[in-house]
Order: sequence, then structure tokens, then C-alpha cells
Amino acid sequence: MAGNSFGTIFKLTTFGESHGEAIGGIIDGCPAGLPIDFKAVEADMQRRKPGQSAIVTQRKEPDTVQFISGIFEGKTTGTPIGFVIENTNQKSKDYSHIKDTYRPSHADYTYDKKYGNRDYRGGGRSSARETACRVAAGAIAKQLLKDIKITAYVSAVGELSLQKNYSEVNFDEIENNPVRCADANMASKMEAYIKDIRKQGDTVGGQITCVIENVPIGLGEPVFDKLHAQLGKAMLSINAVKGFEYGSGFEGTKMQGSLHNDLFNSDGSTKTNYSGGIQGGISNGEPIYFNVAFKPVATIMQKQQTINSEGKQVEMQGKGRHDPCVVPRAVPIVEAMAALVLADFWLLNKVSKL
Amino acid sequence: MAGNSFGTIFKLTTFGESHGEAIGGIIDGCPAGLPIDFKAVEADMQRRKPGQSAIVTQRKEPDTVQFISGIFEGKTTGTPIGFVIENTNQKSKDYSHIKDTYRPSHADYTYDKKYGNRDYRGGGRSSARETACRVAAGAIAKQLLKDIKITAYVSAVGELSLQKNYSEVNFDEIENNPVRCADANMASKMEAYIKDIRKQGDTVGGQITCVIENVPIGLGEPVFDKLHAQLGKAMLSINAVKGFEYGSGFEGTKMQGSLHNDLFNSDGSTKTNYSGGIQGGISNGEPIYFNVAFKPVATIMQKQQTINSEGKQVEMQGKGRHDPCVVPRAVPIVEAMAALVLADFWLLNKVSKL
Amino acid sequence: MAGNSFGTIFKLTTFGESHGEAIGGIIDGCPAGLPIDFKAVEADMQRRKPGQSAIVTQRKEPDTVQFISGIFEGKTTGTPIGFVIENTNQKSKDYSHIKDTYRPSHADYTYDKKYGNRDYRGGGRSSARETACRVAAGAIAKQLLKDIKITAYVSAVGELSLQKNYSEVNFDEIENNPVRCADANMASKMEAYIKDIRKQGDTVGGQITCVIENVPIGLGEPVFDKLHAQLGKAMLSINAVKGFEYGSGFEGTKMQGSLHNDLFNSDGSTKTNYSGGIQGGISNGEPIYFNVAFKPVATIMQKQQTINSEGKQVEMQGKGRHDPCVVPRAVPIVEAMAALVLADFWLLNKVSKL
Amino acid sequence: MAGNSFGTIFKLTTFGESHGEAIGGIIDGCPAGLPIDFKAVEADMQRRKPGQSAIVTQRKEPDTVQFISGIFEGKTTGTPIGFVIENTNQKSKDYSHIKDTYRPSHADYTYDKKYGNRDYRGGGRSSARETACRVAAGAIAKQLLKDIKITAYVSAVGELSLQKNYSEVNFDEIENNPVRCADANMASKMEAYIKDIRKQGDTVGGQITCVIENVPIGLGEPVFDKLHAQLGKAMLSINAVKGFEYGSGFEGTKMQGSLHNDLFNSDGSTKTNYSGGIQGGISNGEPIYFNVAFKPVATIMQKQQTINSEGKQVEMQGKGRHDPCVVPRAVPIVEAMAALVLADFWLLNKVSKL
Repeated sequence: MAGNSFGTIFKLTTFGESHGEAIGGIIDGCPAGLPIDFKAVEADMQRRKPGQSAIVTQRKEPDTVQFISGIFEGKTTGTPIGFVIENTNQKSKDYSHIKDTYRPSHADYTYDKKYGNRDYRGGGRSSARETACRVAAGAIAKQLLKDIKITAYVSAVGELSLQKNYSEVNFDEIENNPVRCADANMASKMEAYIKDIRKQGDTVGGQITCVIENVPIGLGEPVFDKLHAQLGKAMLSINAVKGFEYGSGFEGTKMQGSLHNDLFNSDGSTKTNYSGGIQGGISNGEPIYFNVAFKPVATIMQKQQTINSEGKQVEMQGKGRHDPCVVPRAVPIVEAMAALVLADFWLLNKVSKL
Repeated sequence: MAGNSFGTIFKLTTFGESHGEAIGGIIDGCPAGLPIDFKAVEADMQRRKPGQSAIVTQRKEPDTVQFISGIFEGKTTGTPIGFVIENTNQKSKDYSHIKDTYRPSHADYTYDKKYGNRDYRGGGRSSARETACRVAAGAIAKQLLKDIKITAYVSAVGELSLQKNYSEVNFDEIENNPVRCADANMASKMEAYIKDIRKQGDTVGGQITCVIENVPIGLGEPVFDKLHAQLGKAMLSINAVKGFEYGSGFEGTKMQGSLHNDLFNSDGSTKTNYSGGIQGGISNGEPIYFNVAFKPVATIMQKQQTINSEGKQVEMQGKGRHDPCVVPRAVPIVEAMAALVLADFWLLNKVSKL
Repeated sequence: MAGNSFGTIFKLTTFGESHGEAIGGIIDGCPAGLPIDFKAVEADMQRRKPGQSAIVTQRKEPDTVQFISGIFEGKTTGTPIGFVIENTNQKSKDYSHIKDTYRPSHADYTYDKKYGNRDYRGGGRSSARETACRVAAGAIAKQLLKDIKITAYVSAVGELSLQKNYSEVNFDEIENNPVRCADANMASKMEAYIKDIRKQGDTVGGQITCVIENVPIGLGEPVFDKLHAQLGKAMLSINAVKGFEYGSGFEGTKMQGSLHNDLFNSDGSTKTNYSGGIQGGISNGEPIYFNVAFKPVATIMQKQQTINSEGKQVEMQGKGRHDPCVVPRAVPIVEAMAALVLADFWLLNKVSKL
Repeated sequence: MAGNSFGTIFKLTTFGESHGEAIGGIIDGCPAGLPIDFKAVEADMQRRKPGQSAIVTQRKEPDTVQFISGIFEGKTTGTPIGFVIENTNQKSKDYSHIKDTYRPSHADYTYDKKYGNRDYRGGGRSSARETACRVAAGAIAKQLLKDIKITAYVSAVGELSLQKNYSEVNFDEIENNPVRCADANMASKMEAYIKDIRKQGDTVGGQITCVIENVPIGLGEPVFDKLHAQLGKAMLSINAVKGFEYGSGFEGTKMQGSLHNDLFNSDGSTKTNYSGGIQGGISNGEPIYFNVAFKPVATIMQKQQTINSEGKQVEMQGKGRHDPCVVPRAVPIVEAMAALVLADFWLLNKVSKL
């Protein structure tokens, strides 16, 4: 395998470079008989696409998903679902200046060394453009999961951090502000901050929190494919992600067991949820929640010193239309990857016992 | 798949419950011709095993690895390496009192619901006993990786956190203290703290930092099997782990791109290493470093309220011999999982280009 | 997994129905730096496509392969190779009459029962149309395999069987006749026979022999992924295939060991080759040869009794443009599947020893 | 992967050499709650083991399967089932004479070339000893499949071929004769023939027919993992197998479609069964039947010319206790591999539609 497939039964395989003709993928293993709501797919694509607000890149791409197979008369047929998303906005000229230059903290250098050549038109395969396929597939997975509710929101931008836990925020706020923060006041602060960062021609990191509700008990396949291990891999595979924690996470390392243990109610639910809805790698029916850390975007609109393929020091000036902060557009990507993980485990769990 | 295999080419599959006769595994895909240093395997097993110091569980188990196949006249033959580790210290009686009781924040409840039954003699499959197989396999992987140096150490116990980065600590200290902290002063504080926690019959969490040096450029298989994504999954699959971050991690989310970008030296190395040795999911030759968060052990030596399988509230008193803090013994497990990930990608990378 | 991927490292995943807009696939794991000869791909597509001669279906489809990703400036980049082949000749109307009818010895009934619905426009996913993607991917695999020479030819049509072994036939004849038989006299007999069968509105089965020369020693991954086991699976996965034998095959079951054993020459080559170039599931450097059995095409131009989805007996009259005998067009498919198997094992073998 | 795993959800991984301490395996993915009949496992092991009759090798091995994990209080727990079978009869001395000699038509030469070294004590990993693990795992799979009835029998030994199809033979005869032929008269002829072959110090090939009854409709995962493709791979992965055909097989290639098509009864069953119970790679509810071709055993009790590792021509005299004909003992192996394939597809089919 060369790393472009995700999942065991509900499996996504993707292809495509940022400046090729198109990107796309194949979903293999989606059960037959699932009615597909194409508007819902489109809606998630809109949440990820460039140009949607003043605080994201102003590139314009419709990002329409064209489904080619596996769906007939509005329902899945059980055969592989092939789809393509055209790259309508390639602007290769924008990138000619970096043909022989390795951009700092990008994948230019590592791809060139690993593969011996690279598609120098933009990020090629390493571009976040690829995540559009994840959102398309995730939108199908969400429909398979029906009642399981996956909600992601921005919980931090730079130093601005939402000091409320998932039960205290307002999910209805998320789509009311361009930052996708689940708190109106914090959202406006974050928006102003991102605009200021952009003025500086700089970028900043952030965090996304994801909450999954109405999860059936039993999802996850220990010992290696624990639910949180696969969720962690899914999130860490998203461009710019540097960290993942679930439940009590890194803060929980400071706690004592006598406080951290989640005591049971008689119905099997727990009085607290430091476990984050997962025990022993298997969902316990409580809400699953986790945080994802995103680094600042590497492409800045400032002069930077770097090297070219001959190892010569050269100066480069960031051009093009990039995001000052990636988290607002990453919200649907986090949801999509969570949906892919859950869909796979939801199917696998159907054969875990007689 | 039901989650008991890890890796693609260098693949480990494990079996065994904490109170069965033995645990074991199969390593498939280890190249032929590798001379095996059995003493090195034994040494890692000793670092993980119970009873090694005053601050870990006093259970006594030799944890000798018995290799059954795949090694002939001291070298690997290219055939699967089967191994078994006996459970010499089962003491099932210790556990009879919890036959029908779900221990808080353990996997008793989720295993019972997922599988419809469970091995109630201790944790069964969900016990950290299983990680002994990972250490055995990881010790083989380390030998395959030769010059790649993997070093893990305890960087936090509860509130006590080592405020030095990986380049400032002293790796030689690690095995000089029972905590496996890479700093002598902090080690003694941590040791005293853990002893105090034990006196309280309580437990506490902690963190482990892992550093990988001399990594060849090119390891990792984007877009889904990025090096850090697979490392994250590997770490999160270890019992009690709640979080993973690499390079600048969660702190990096607060930084601006102009500072966070790692500028190149002419030889392709970088002046800083916020990227943590990985760019675009592929190793860039700089040291890889990451932190792993461990929750406090769920088994405490105090009375706790819980429920039994009928949902009746019952009181339980922790018994047996458990770790007040898991991180000292988890150090070789973190190294082993890192070695398994790197061995697999090291082999895969050999076929990434002509 | 739902069965639409083939291979471990050099992995093909396909999608598409016969009467959708297009079919296509993704090749993941092709090493970077391979120069792609698009004319060679086109040439194999031409050998498979309908309408190429008087003895195959007269459907017209250009079957042009459109490569979308993974190839840049004429060379593979190591990223997934996505490709699409348009269905220019859908003629769905031709099939409306069988919407509710199960064609005898087709997959209509089994798909409907397994998936609960089916794409009734022609064979949908079960149509041999799907094999066009295999030929496209196989043409890339052939280029990766460079010096390994894969040659398939028709060795039997109905009762007409070529009574010569692979070393006695003339490979140069294969593309000189529409049957793709490696013997000119037999070819003309077979051609006349097929034309006669067509006149009857009937169909007939046949056999294809494949020979692989210049195979390096060491390909194949025992014990389950033996070279011949994977070749057998590859061939049996082709539409209408009913059997596979390699080396001495079914005839060899009648022989005694004293005669069947292939004695060695001093250079490790063998005096005879009953083993078919494979011993213990691993190539030994001798030519690999095998036979593939194809059943008569199920669609005949005669009236047949069958049932509809309500189980009512109905009469159906075959329509459309079908092959009286599938083997001439299956020759490039057999070669393509052999190439996919060898490419995967060729890469895997690079990491079998240090 | 290095080829020692079989299956996707119900997955067997094996290890062990013929002259190591033991062989064994891990079954991962067996659903929880399956009561295990250990006597039934033992019974299949007895049918495969050496020394069971006068016409098989007289080696003595108890071949007792020791289950180590995954079964608790008589039922599967959903965790991996680890098992070990001791090699009680290693007699390594018997083999010292072939340390540097490549036996004709064995895997000695190919293993040595592929891996750069080999376990020269007998066949090592390439020995049919490995199939004992398949029988153990297959016996568990059979219990999972409950009502699906898998019956294999010897249908040919050398030139002696049973000229009856599966519906004409008597399954009750199979275990009444040491050959495991489903016809009493033919069985005695075959037995006499094998005894004569043994007297000559020679060996002979044969065929096994397998019939699978009460198969639910819908098993198989097109397009690559068709039911018959996976069955074919399973059979071809068994030592000494040279060919596989199902349904009308190679004979069917001579038929015309008008005769070969299986017409439907109103209940969806078919009037004939040339399809062999599989259409489009999916079971249709009719009996599945296939033939497996076995070559003559390579080890003969006669002098043979061969070469050593320096390429010197040397004479060797077969020693030890070998089977003159492998098919009687291969009957349970064929059944076991069929059971592994069906168990996997039976589970996968549970998630093929909503």
C-alpha cells in the first residue's frame, strides 16, 4: 500500500494533485440501499471551499462533486462509488517561481527526496486541496450513520482559546460566524484577530473540538484499532495537524485516578466523562469528544530565506491566495474524517458477535 | 480484520489474555538475514516487566520471550516469527470478586456489551499485559532499524513536568532512575511523588517524550499513512493513552507562521525543528520528537461505588498489585511501537521510487 | 473491503458500471520515476475493445484512457494514478426489456439478492466492461516490469484445441489473426468455427494460455500468497473464467513423481518444466505458463425461458451486440492481470531479505 | 504483508517450520459467542495427520491443537484465538544429508535464492506440515458456518478417475476407506494402486472434488474477490496443488451457451448447475462444487540426480517416511480452506446492504 486508502470495510481511496485536471476518489464498501442526499454533500463541500468568507483564501473553486458510479435511482447499489471534483482554478503560472525552490515547512523538500521528482505546480499531492475528497466521502459516511451526530467547531485561534467544555457551548452558533466558533463573543474576537494576522501577511494556528453524540456502544476494534487510535490517525492525517487528544487528554495526565474515574449510573451511563466516551478503545455510549491542533499555515505573504534544489540560498516572496488561519475551513474536514472512522467501525461491529 | 494486527509489510499480530496460559504474536514480513540479539530483546522486556522497582506493581513475572519460528542459526529466515510469553502469575482468585462487577474507567463494561461476554479474570484482552508482545516485536524492529536511535523518557508525572526540550535533557540519566526521567533532579522529585500517591492508595497520570534520531529522509506514506499519523495511532493504541502531539504540537497552535516555519540550511537541514522532523507526513532527516499523554491508572486501592452486570450499585475495594503511575513501565512500550511504525515505513520506502 | 481492490503494494482499485457515465480506477503504489509510454497503453486497450474484428461484438467504443493524476512530465510521481474511461456507447434503451428479468447464467439474480437492488442497464458492475480498467492498469504494470515478457494467446475454442505446448507455438502469429491463436492453421479453423457459432445465434467457450518469460527468481509470498495462488485468483476474477491450471496442471495429476520431478542443471535451471516456473509458490527463473478456461458467453441470440423478479416464467430474446466467443478479446485481460500480480510481487520481493 | 495471513474479517495468520518446536496460528475476527466443539477440531486433525493408514506416511505425530486464547468457558470471546501444535517428531538427523542439496521439484532452491538462507531441516516453512494449522482454523470456521455443509473427497488418483458427478456419489463412503473416495469400488482400486506405487518407491498425483451445500445466496465480493476466485486462491495455496476448476470447469469450455446456460425455476433455483453455484462471483444458492489438482509428491524413494548449493551435480537417495499420494490426507485441508473462505464472505455479506 502507498497510503492513499483509509478504512477496512468502508474504504476510501483518493487520487489527484492540486493542479492536475481533477481530484477524486472511490468509496468501496458502502452498503447497498442507502438513499443519497446530494444537497447534504454539496452543503459540506461549501463549508470547506475557498472564497466562502473574508477570512479565508479568496481562490474561487465551485468544488462540485460528480458521482460517477455506485448510486442508481438515488440509492447506493453496493458497488464502488467513484467521484471526481474538477480543479477549475489551477493558475499554474502563480507557482512557476517556486519550480526549483523548496518552501519552508512545506512538503516540497521531502516529496522531492522521497520520490526523486515532484509536481512543482503548487503543493501537488501534498496540497490541502486533497481534503475535498475526504469531505465528499465523509458526507456519504454521515448519511450511513444516520442518528449519530458529529459536530466540530473552532475552539482556539492562536492565543484565543474558548474556555468552555463541549457541554457549555452553543452548537447553533457555529455556522453563524465565519470562524465556526461555537461561541458568538469569542467568534468575533477570533475574526478580528485573523483579519489582523492577514494584514501582517502572516498566519496563525488554532484548534478544533469535535463532539460525537448518540454513539452506539461497541464501536472500535482493540487492541490496535481502538476507536480513539483510529480517530487520532484520521485527524493527524489532515494537513497541518500536529496533535490529538480525547476525553481528559493532556490535562488528564495531571489528575489522580480517584478523581478521574468515571463512576457508573445504574443504566451504565457515567456520572462524569473524562473517558471521552471511549473505554478500552470501545465506545461506551457517552459523547465522544476530542481536540485537534493545527499549526500556522506555512505559506506567508512575507519575504523568506530558503534554498533551491541546488542547495543555493534564495529569497522568496509568498504569492497567491492563502488562508491566514486554516481552522475555519478545516471544521468540515474533521467531521468528515470522524464520519469515515465511525462508518467503518459501525459496520465492523455488526459482525463482532453472533 | 478485528484489530489485532499492526503494520503493512512489517506486520505484528498478537493474541492472549492476561490470565490465559500465555500471550504471544507473529511478526510477518521481517526481512531474512537479520542477526537477532536475544539479549537486547530480553533487556527491553526487563524494562517493561512488573516488580522491577519500588514504584511499580510488585507482581512477579519473568516475561521471557520464547521464539518458536522464523529464526534459524541466529538469523531471521524471512518466514513468520512466532513467539510466546507465558503467564506465570495468573492468580485468578484475586479477581473472582469482580466477576460480575464493572470496574469504573476500565473496559469491563464495553467488552461485555460489544462481545456479549468477557474474560472476567482481570482485564483479559484489555489488560496492559498485552503490551509485552509489543515490546518483544519492537525489539526485533529496533534491530532491523540499526542506526536509527529511538529514545523515550518520562517528561511529566502529574503536575511535575520537565521544562526542558529534548535537546536539553540527558539521555544517559534515563535508566539511572526508576522513573525513567531524563533529568536526575526531576527524577527524584517524581519518585517521591509517586511513592506518596501510592501511600494514598491512589494513582496519577503522566507523559512520555520520545525522540528518534538518525532517521533517513523519506519515511511515511501520504496522504493517509503519514508518518506522524501512524505514530499517533501506534501511541494511542497503548493502554491509558489519551493524547499525542509531535513537533510544536498543541503549543504550536499559538504561534505565527513567520516564526514557526523552519528555515533551511544549504544542506537541507533546518535551523529550527518545529516540524518535529516530519513535513507533509514524510521524515525530513531532522530528529523526530513527540509527547504521549497517559491517564491515571483506573485501578485504585480505595473503596469505589460501581455497578454489577444487573445494574445494581455495589461498592468495590481495589485489590491486587497495581502501578500507582504507568509511565515508568510504558517507556519501552512507546519505543517499541515507534520501532514498529518505522520498520514498516523503512521497508515501504525501499519501493517508493525506481 | 468490498472486493474492488487488487494487490498489496502495487494496488488497483476500480469503479464503474457498464452503463454509467464512465468507469475508472486508481493505481496506488506505482514507484516514482517510471516513464509512461501512453501509446503502449492505447495499444492494449485496442486489443480488448469491441468492434475490432468480424468475430467480436460490433459495439463501438473508443475506450480511450484519460490519466488524471500521478504522472507528471511523462513520468510517474509516486502519487496515486487516477484514470477514467468514458462509456460513450451506453444505449440504455437496448436493455429496458430486461429491467425486471433475470438473464440465465448472468449475475442479475445474485446481485439483486445480495444488494437488494441492481443497475438493470446491462450488466452494471458485473459487465465485462469493467475489465477495460484492468487492461489500462496492467499496461502500466507491464512497463514497470520492463524485461519480463508476458504473452497470452488463444489455445482452444470449443472443441478446437491447439495440441502444442508453449515452446512449440509461434508468438508472432498471435496478432496476425483475429482469434489471437499462436498457430496460423488453427487460427483459421477457429475463426471459421466462431463465425458459424455466431450464425447459429449461439456462443462457445475457449481457453487462453499465458507464458511469462525472463522472470527473476524469488517472486511470490508463501504460504498463502504463493505466486500461482495469486495468479489463479487474478485469472478467476475475470468474467466467465471457470478454471486455472499452471505447469503440468490437471494432466500432471496422472504422472508419477519419478517422471514429474524437474531435475536441475548445474546453473540451477531445470531440464524439464512441469513445475511451470514456480516451486513452493516462488518463481524459479524458468518460464511460467498457465491455462485459463472461459465458459461460453451467457447472452445468446436465441429465445430462452427465464423468470422475472416476481418469479414469473417469461420468454426472452437476446438482443444487442455480443461476443460469440470471449477469448480473442480476453487475451489482453489475461496479460494485464498477470502483470498486476507480478508487479506487486516484484516490489514485495525487494524487501524479502537484507 | 509477507503472505502468511488469509482472509479479511475472519483472518488466519500462521507461523512455524516443520522441524521447529511447534507451529501455530492466530484466528482474528471470529465473532464472540460461538460455542467451540473441541472434539470436532480433533476429528479433522486426525483426518489430516500422518500414520493414520497403510497408504500414507508412517510418521507419528499426535497433532493435538492447544488453544491458548480467545475461548473462555467454552465460547469464543471475540478476541484473537491463538493456538499451537507441537512438532513432536522432528527427527532432524533424517535431513542432515540434504543440508546443502536442493531436492528436485521442492522449494529448497527457491527459498534459498529468495531469502538468502533456509531452514534445511526438512521443508522448513515450505513443508505441508504447515497445513495442520489450516485444518485447525478451518474446523473453527466450519462451526461458525453451522448449516453450510462442506464435503471433500478423492475423485482421482493417477489415471484412476471417478466418472461420476457430485450428485451421483455416496458421501457416506468417504470415511469408510483410507483413500477417502466417495465410491467403494473405485476406492479399493485406488488403494491397491497407491500400494503398488509405494512398492516402486514412487509417488503419484490425484484430484479432490469438494461440494458445498446449503450455501446462502449472496456470498462473494466482486469484482476481484469473487467467491470462486478466493476459493481458487485458497486451494492453489495448498502444497502440491496445480489446478482449480469449478462448475463446468475446463470441460465447459467446449460447450455452447444455449446448452450451458442454467435456466431458472420459478423459485430462483436452476434446472442445471453448470455455474457451480456461483454467478458473477456470488453464490446463487445451488450447490458449489470444484475440483483441485494435486501433483505427484516430489520426494520419491529412488536415487535421483540433483545439485548442491555450489551447483555440483550430486546423487541423492530419498529417505524418511513420505506419502506415495497426497490426496487422502489433503481432503480435510481442502475442506478447511473452503471453510475459511466461506466464513470470511459470510461475515462480509452481513454488511453488504442496509
